[in-house]
Amino acid sequence: MFVSDCLDVNEKGHLTIGGCDTVALAEEYGTPLYVMDGTKIRATCRMYQDSFRKYYNGRGTTVYASKAFNCKEICRIAAQEGLCLDVVSGGEMYTAIQAGFPAERIHFHGNNKTDEEIRMGMEYGIGHFIVDNLTEMENIHRIAGEMAKTAHVSLRIKPGIDAHTHQFIKTGQIDSKFGFALETGEAMEAVKAALTYDNIELKGLHCHIGSQIFDSQPFVLAAEVMLDFIGKIKKETGIEIGELNLGGGFGISYVSSDSPLPYGRYMELVSAAVLKKCRDLELKVPYIFIEPGRSIVGEAGITLYHVGAIKHIPNVRTYLSVDGGMTDNPRYILYQAPYTAVVANKADLPADTEVTIAGKCCESGDLIQENAMIQKAEPGDILAVLSTGAYNYSMASNYNRIPKPAVVMTKDGASRLIVRRESYEDLIKNDL
Amino acid sequence: MFVSDCLDVNEKGHLTIGGCDTVALAEEYGTPLYVMDGTKIRATCRMYQDSFRKYYNGRGTTVYASKAFNCKEICRIAAQEGLCLDVVSGGEMYTAIQAGFPAERIHFHGNNKTDEEIRMGMEYGIGHFIVDNLTEMENIHRIAGEMAKTAHVSLRIKPGIDAHTHQFIKTGQIDSKFGFALETGEAMEAVKAALTYDNIELKGLHCHIGSQIFDSQPFVLAAEVMLDFIGKIKKETGIEIGELNLGGGFGISYVSSDSPLPYGRYMELVSAAVLKKCRDLELKVPYIFIEPGRSIVGEAGITLYHVGAIKHIPNVRTYLSVDGGMTDNPRYILYQAPYTAVVANKADLPADTEVTIAGKCCESGDLIQENAMIQKAEPGDILAVLSTGAYNYSMASNYNRIPKPAVVMTKDGASRLIVRRESYEDLIKNDL
Repeated sequence: MFVSDCLDVNEKGHLTIGGCDTVALAEEYGTPLYVMDGTKIRATCRMYQDSFRKYYNGRGTTVYASKAFNCKEICRIAAQEGLCLDVVSGGEMYTAIQAGFPAERIHFHGNNKTDEEIRMGMEYGIGHFIVDNLTEMENIHRIAGEMAKTAHVSLRIKPGIDAHTHQFIKTGQIDSKFGFALETGEAMEAVKAALTYDNIELKGLHCHIGSQIFDSQPFVLAAEVMLDFIGKIKKETGIEIGELNLGGGFGISYVSSDSPLPYGRYMELVSAAVLKKCRDLELKVPYIFIEPGRSIVGEAGITLYHVGAIKHIPNVRTYLSVDGGMTDNPRYILYQAPYTAVVANKADLPADTEVTIAGKCCESGDLIQENAMIQKAEPGDILAVLSTGAYNYSMASNYNRIPKPAVVMTKDGASRLIVRRESYEDLIKNDL
Repeated sequence: MFVSDCLDVNEKGHLTIGGCDTVALAEEYGTPLYVMDGTKIRATCRMYQDSFRKYYNGRGTTVYASKAFNCKEICRIAAQEGLCLDVVSGGEMYTAIQAGFPAERIHFHGNNKTDEEIRMGMEYGIGHFIVDNLTEMENIHRIAGEMAKTAHVSLRIKPGIDAHTHQFIKTGQIDSKFGFALETGEAMEAVKAALTYDNIELKGLHCHIGSQIFDSQPFVLAAEVMLDFIGKIKKETGIEIGELNLGGGFGISYVSSDSPLPYGRYMELVSAAVLKKCRDLELKVPYIFIEPGRSIVGEAGITLYHVGAIKHIPNVRTYLSVDGGMTDNPRYILYQAPYTAVVANKADLPADTEVTIAGKCCESGDLIQENAMIQKAEPGDILAVLSTGAYNYSMASNYNRIPKPAVVMTKDGASRLIVRRESYEDLIKNDL
């Protein structure tokens, strides 16, 4: 019925998530409110982990890309489910460590890690630095040397795949701030450089071809390109790379017309391609990492708002204002991202009314969605926006000095707070 | 030499702001760092206030639109300079009150004020509620009634002016989430409704025609339209509206090709138009408010970064990464906003190198500026991005769990912290 299987409608006609009545959640915790179903999150983690066992002899691990949604509780869940964790800053790393996440399962990404962040990672003993560029490689080598340690390193490679056209593109993907380009020889140069540094141990290669991808073909192509490169490295250096991180980018459902790839099918196809390439090129089968973020948390989350003023402009449109907006969900103003909305207390009624959902910020572009079809609403209703589990809380701002909403997690009809609502006092705590 | 007159170059060839060496500021306070020149901010406040004395018999006040940059110190400056304050949320109002800003000089804006915010405003005794819609008017009346108080109210009117084409547009400006439309009769209906509520005292009208406007003509047109409406209200109700808020939107310099209107000239032209209309329509001369935000703080602020990795992609472009990005300045990813950048420790050298300035976030779109001309840079240099005083700190996020930078204020060669840098501990303080 809805874009996510953790949503349903109860006997009162109210939208439910994880068995909890969303109208009751809005009442108990206030709005705006992020709600995430823990059961759905864990089920997705297990599906990914199982796919390695099913199709790849278990020789792989899922790395949760925590930039999609990072807080202490999601780090604990990832740890409990046996996942690794992708962090992209000192702040994400700090959160993970404070949550008790095992440092050796942390993969540290980013195109411009600071010396302080590199030192922090070395001190914690994180398992993987995903190295983006030669300046960074030198910095890691130097800092590891100062600390008399060895850094475990993978190299971020631009495989030259454009996920939208499924073509190799000469300038498209090469024009990215991330990684070493294959086709310019830069990637091979980076591999050889890594092998010369005493305090660096080259463990693997990494690639990432894009986001919200619905097709398996670009993933398969990327895997093949990376295996070819591993073969070439073996030929030129004698070194056989043992770890291959194929990144993330698996699409989710925001609206009913979205048709995500079944994730198991992805792993089946990619595994087959990897195994075939290894036979053809006489390579050892590498250990594989994949990095889903959005697809683990996206559909598991919704945002609840109170409906405020409704402004009907004859012959133009109807604006329905909610008590949040671009501060808690900037994806419409950033990317004109599509979302499905539901009047949570009227979820059993037909979605027959067209509205433009506006936030409360003093900015014309502060919209959650234009021309959305929802149930007929009135002030005081609860509006649910679906599939907001990824890149909503994590991208939230305090524009207009609006506090960040709380995050609640559901499980089998029960709910608990996992992130407290920001207070006004929090907003001014650093003001002198 | 630069886009703002608070910037200069010292004998070391370093960029200065408010007489302070930016390289020394980066060293002392760390990067990324927002720096704002207090002297420039106060000078702009005084110029606005003086323009009322010069052209309008002093019968007007400048209202600082604090969404551009809100913290306790800027509220104190606005208070000391005799300005009123435009707030758009409970958080901005709370900050102002905590900074000791006089409640009666606060104007409370927004298209969807919550009951809690309205109650907060009534309790503080703020001077002006700028009412956006009829639902809100009823809520203010009800809450004021419960508290046995009277709310002072202005109505936000859509004057039907498009600031870009300088034309009256039938559907363009009417299609906004803000305010009451003139041409549909909605505005007159709102005036008449306001007059019927016991707990509401209708004090004035408000309009706002857009942002970053370089021409005086749309402001003059808007003023004339609003005066015509005041004349019509007098005819139909016998009531003569005494306050007119003409909003903001005065453009600033981001790049050298920007040519902002001299603000005094704006006031001269608008005052003349208002006075003429009052004579023509036999109206009392209204008290005027204007609401500059960006133009008070924008050019007074810069952001300092350390340059990290520089990635030259042959035949494509050069990416220069800094230790901040869309988290501290989301205006490029949001609006492709133009900015000028300067290598602060080489500010006396020619800006002869084209680079794309990238942030450190794990997002391809995380750029500060594409194809910018700057001095030849290397890792470790200090990069200054100019005119970041408005809508940078205020729009900052913690995406990738990156802490918000500190804000430093300069005055005649001295500097002091006005907002402390967020700590990692701050980031997880609400995580359970």
